[in-house]
Amino acid sequence: MEQETRLTESQPAVPGTVRPGGRTAKVRRAVLDATEDALAAAGFHALNMDHVAASAGVGKTTVYRRWGSPVGLVADLLRDMAEQSLPASDTGSLAGDLRANAALVTKTLTDPRMGAVFRAVIAAAACDEECAEALNGFYRARLQEWAPVVERGAARGEVPAGTDGIELLRAVSAPLYYRFMITREPLGPADAERAAGAALAAAGEGVFTTPD
Amino acid sequence: MEQETRLTESQPAVPGTVRPGGRTAKVRRAVLDATEDALAAAGFHALNMDHVAASAGVGKTTVYRRWGSPVGLVADLLRDMAEQSLPASDTGSLAGDLRANAALVTKTLTDPRMGAVFRAVIAAAACDEECAEALNGFYRARLQEWAPVVERGAARGEVPAGTDGIELLRAVSAPLYYRFMITREPLGPADAERAAGAALAAAGEGVFTTPD
Repeated sequence: MEQETRLTESQPAVPGTVRPGGRTAKVRRAVLDATEDALAAAGFHALNMDHVAASAGVGKTTVYRRWGSPVGLVADLLRDMAEQSLPASDTGSLAGDLRANAALVTKTLTDPRMGAVFRAVIAAAACDEECAEALNGFYRARLQEWAPVVERGAARGEVPAGTDGIELLRAVSAPLYYRFMITREPLGPADAERAAGAALAAAGEGVFTTPD
Repeated sequence: MEQETRLTESQPAVPGTVRPGGRTAKVRRAVLDATEDALAAAGFHALNMDHVAASAGVGKTTVYRRWGSPVGLVADLLRDMAEQSLPASDTGSLAGDLRANAALVTKTLTDPRMGAVFRAVIAAAACDEECAEALNGFYRARLQEWAPVVERGAARGEVPAGTDGIELLRAVSAPLYYRFMITREPLGPADAERAAGAALAAAGEGVFTTPD
């Protein structure tokens, strides 16, 4: 199942930092998978280093030495999520791409496992500055990945030239996360459609156009 | 200083539940003020029942018996915030009222004390269902308080008849909370202006109009 990030698949670690497929990478993969399992099951407040080590089959000493604390685990999971960011849609129209983006975010947040993981990492970021920076990095990567859909839409004349793509994409995601994390209201396909439609309408009125 | 809620002022407790100004109300006020102080200072993950009791000058037994746990304290603080919801603006135009709403939300979230409190209660809601319900109740109260500005705007012809006021108000707040809590990006007056402008433009295009 496609998600905002390929969290559940095994991937080689960051190129350049460790030998792909090497022991260090395998340990990191096992520990981050166990961290994600724990966050999905019980949230950030219950994240326990010893349990993560045991469930990853990795020695406690290694986990404490490399990640230091539960927030260290969450921050590294977020860096891993950013590295594995999926490519953006290219449906042929900006309206189609924004609808695809809103649908993907909605599907991710309403997925029982991934919704719990996102709620946990956002809560962790509220408690710790390193997690907040890693969360910011994750969304920066996602927004950059999708920015070209707005450039293509502007080139096709679907939004005014000079439309700030990142700002338009923020406007698509914001109402979905607002219901999911802030007002704690139900979230569904109609909300995704409305979010994409509202962002596109505002862009059409030049609200996201930057002076150049 | 005006805030989204009169958190820092002493208020009589909920009418009907306890005698206003009575001992029960005074204990609740002292405990909720101490809870807010603790959340502002160190966040939800560091909230400690014994410290709250000591700083409120209330016996530990009372605090444990009435609130049970840190999440019980946060949930009751949120109910108190909802009860003390401030009236909406009435500037004479919908654009002015939405700008005032966006400015108020931005001012609250960027206030060092209140921003920390909001981040803490949202994180608490991510960890606990009772807090999530109380958070939902707080925003429901805020949105209801502001909905009449959209009804007045529709009556003046500033947005299409049948515009869903709550949905329009969600659209104003969402981008501000998204930067503050999700992407962890800076938030300022330009973001407030853009949020109000984007929501109004989308409303003008009929995005928030409900079929009747």
